[in-house]
Amino acid sequence: MDPKSYINSHKDRFINELVELLKLPSISADSSYKNDTIKTAKAVETALSQAGCDAVEICETPGLPIVYGEKIIDQSLPTVLVYGHYDVQPPDPLDLWDSPPFEPVIKPTKIHPEGAIFARGACDDKGQMFMHVKALEFMTKTENLPCNIKFMIEGEEEVGSVSLEWFLERNQEKLKNDVILISDTGMISKEAPSITTGLRGLSYVEVEVTSPNRDLHSGLYGGTVANPINILSQMIASLQDENNHITIPGFYDKVENLSQSERQKMGEAPFDLEEYKAHIDIKDIHGEKGYSTLERGSIRPTLDVNGIWGGYIGEGAKTVIPSKAFAKISMRLVPNQDWEEITQLFKTHFEKIAPKSVSVEVKPHHGGQAYVTPIDGIEYQAADQAIQDVFSKPAIPQRSGGSIPIVSLFEGYLKSKTILLGFGLNSDAIHSPNEHFGVWNFLKGIETIPYFYKHFTELKQAENN
Amino acid sequence: MDPKSYINSHKDRFINELVELLKLPSISADSSYKNDTIKTAKAVETALSQAGCDAVEICETPGLPIVYGEKIIDQSLPTVLVYGHYDVQPPDPLDLWDSPPFEPVIKPTKIHPEGAIFARGACDDKGQMFMHVKALEFMTKTENLPCNIKFMIEGEEEVGSVSLEWFLERNQEKLKNDVILISDTGMISKEAPSITTGLRGLSYVEVEVTSPNRDLHSGLYGGTVANPINILSQMIASLQDENNHITIPGFYDKVENLSQSERQKMGEAPFDLEEYKAHIDIKDIHGEKGYSTLERGSIRPTLDVNGIWGGYIGEGAKTVIPSKAFAKISMRLVPNQDWEEITQLFKTHFEKIAPKSVSVEVKPHHGGQAYVTPIDGIEYQAADQAIQDVFSKPAIPQRSGGSIPIVSLFEGYLKSKTILLGFGLNSDAIHSPNEHFGVWNFLKGIETIPYFYKHFTELKQAENN
Repeated sequence: MDPKSYINSHKDRFINELVELLKLPSISADSSYKNDTIKTAKAVETALSQAGCDAVEICETPGLPIVYGEKIIDQSLPTVLVYGHYDVQPPDPLDLWDSPPFEPVIKPTKIHPEGAIFARGACDDKGQMFMHVKALEFMTKTENLPCNIKFMIEGEEEVGSVSLEWFLERNQEKLKNDVILISDTGMISKEAPSITTGLRGLSYVEVEVTSPNRDLHSGLYGGTVANPINILSQMIASLQDENNHITIPGFYDKVENLSQSERQKMGEAPFDLEEYKAHIDIKDIHGEKGYSTLERGSIRPTLDVNGIWGGYIGEGAKTVIPSKAFAKISMRLVPNQDWEEITQLFKTHFEKIAPKSVSVEVKPHHGGQAYVTPIDGIEYQAADQAIQDVFSKPAIPQRSGGSIPIVSLFEGYLKSKTILLGFGLNSDAIHSPNEHFGVWNFLKGIETIPYFYKHFTELKQAENN
Repeated sequence: MDPKSYINSHKDRFINELVELLKLPSISADSSYKNDTIKTAKAVETALSQAGCDAVEICETPGLPIVYGEKIIDQSLPTVLVYGHYDVQPPDPLDLWDSPPFEPVIKPTKIHPEGAIFARGACDDKGQMFMHVKALEFMTKTENLPCNIKFMIEGEEEVGSVSLEWFLERNQEKLKNDVILISDTGMISKEAPSITTGLRGLSYVEVEVTSPNRDLHSGLYGGTVANPINILSQMIASLQDENNHITIPGFYDKVENLSQSERQKMGEAPFDLEEYKAHIDIKDIHGEKGYSTLERGSIRPTLDVNGIWGGYIGEGAKTVIPSKAFAKISMRLVPNQDWEEITQLFKTHFEKIAPKSVSVEVKPHHGGQAYVTPIDGIEYQAADQAIQDVFSKPAIPQRSGGSIPIVSLFEGYLKSKTILLGFGLNSDAIHSPNEHFGVWNFLKGIETIPYFYKHFTELKQAENN
């Protein structure tokens, strides 16, 4: 029996099982949701057992637990390690959701006439992680499993996978594998299947500017003391020049510069700028001078303020000079930039540019390295052939602007390459209100994954002989 | 009987009555406190009747009511109109208060060994307004009232006195007077009694910067679209140059420039910069190049961000490019700057400097004109003599950095001058956590006010003969 026919006879159950998983608010960034997050780990444990894993366990870490499961059929066969995460981004701003983030709704959209599942985590990453669980179910129930499979599903991806390195360090033998398979990225479009060959790194910091020791009356003190909000605004503004280049000394020193031919090849990926602008309703694009929108979003580093607050933000007016102002700032990094070095460069620079009338504190949050997958390796070839089996066309290799910091961590500890086989779309609104995942994409993922195992096993064995 | 002895035998009751008034959270900026604010108006009505006013009424307006009361003893005698307000600033940030803002506590401080009353509104303006109520009580109970007195106590001062003009327009005959007396300002120190001869104007606006139509993933979109927080920061930063001059075209065109001799006279007011810095714990002062701290805080206009917010401001990290960013911005103005013109200049400029990748909205909040009291008029002389009777030294005329927008409104509608006879201190932390008012200052105010009536009546009658 091939994946397609098995999926057709079970798809309603697959969707209902995912919907149940999406009802659990596993928000790792907010400790008040810890119980729900643990409950979600247990639900994943159950799903893996039911799908055919032999040894499933909830592994404690210094933070939220990691769910591990495996199906070992023959030690001599290749082993694939599947990574995913069961935690989700905070859903706010809640008032912008058309339906509650943890009450999944299935409805058709322009891009998804067959319907899309609307819920926080529908795509990132519960939906994509669950494709692998259901693909395993197909392979075990129909004796189509060609290799050994291990699952490692964590609960802290949205807060920087803070406990993952601790876990990898202590479980290198248990996690031993020949390739790591992750579905936490997207494809260009339903007509243009793609494999993500590059990820950006990340450095996330929080800054605090303090001026007077208490809030002051802006009439009595206005003009005489540094206003921490005005100062913070000036400091943030100075981090980019008029060409939107980042001004932190040394920031670009190690940036990988692509050749003209590589950039040309990138430019050939299907991309409609007007459609892009219309989709997010922006009057004009904005970014680093000298680069295209696709390049700005993938091969170039960035600096974005993700949150800012200070002073009176309630109803009406308050004439106050606040004591403090705050901002959360993240930088997306590209291959060869070391995130810890960049964090230090930011800290040093930000403290240096503070006027002596204020005090500044920079708190590093988390980060990770950028990553590139070689397209001439058997890992990429196996994924490309699986795409061709299901979509009848080759995959387009693409660089993503996003970060999965743990990918380079894996290579360091487990010495294996990672394949980023994603089925989400840019329009899925991950990290935003009304996140959703197309039912078509969900089922195509389940259908494609088993072919990857098949081709990878064959290529790996051919390589060994 | 002189004021001093009457006060000595009644001061405990005076303080208790004020404490009761301070328990009412009359926060005009927050509509959820409307009932408490109305309750406060009723309490003021009762206090005025008990103090000896004949006709006391709560006058409805399109907004919060105005409490009016009068004691007319002889139409041929001069009439003084007392203005004050019963509403208070929002108390947040609550966590910085040592005791709850609406549970008054009396305790000694370094500056107030006799004790200070800690509560929101203790000084601004319930405490200072109540001095006039108790001064009236003394004069009526001891037959020391030399003239007619009218009271107008409003409930919207902290939100720009939005209904006051409506009220003035309809009650010009009822409010007819020879001088307006207000205690909503401060004195330089307990040893340096002063009269405020100048006030700054105010223009308060709220701005909103919008980029994408929804929050976006900062990895997938970072670098390709305008981040409204980065843009807002850049726009705010550009409003001041490296010398902290405001860059809005035309902003300084009508600014009153004081002569060197006037500036020299100002510089003679007692002021200790080190003490000033130590009191609010700032490492250095900050302000417009070419002016002293006293000048920056009184005779020069300012631009301060009073609040800013956008993106994720919760616990942990969220990698988002928000759809919108907001700021509340106020400008303090000086004589001859018209607040409505300045608001328009700001709006035009702020919209002009917005990059075409974002849309900007500027919402004017409220404002008011600056004001100057001539020190050669009988109003000032009467106040100065009252100060000398009680403090045995002349008052120091000083320009305040604060704004009481309605002062110039009064002159327009009621054609009379205003005397700003304040007994608060800079250290009272008005508009801040732990606002307080010295018991000594409260009682000195009650003692001084009757002398003002006496001297003003004499000077006015002399002027008429």
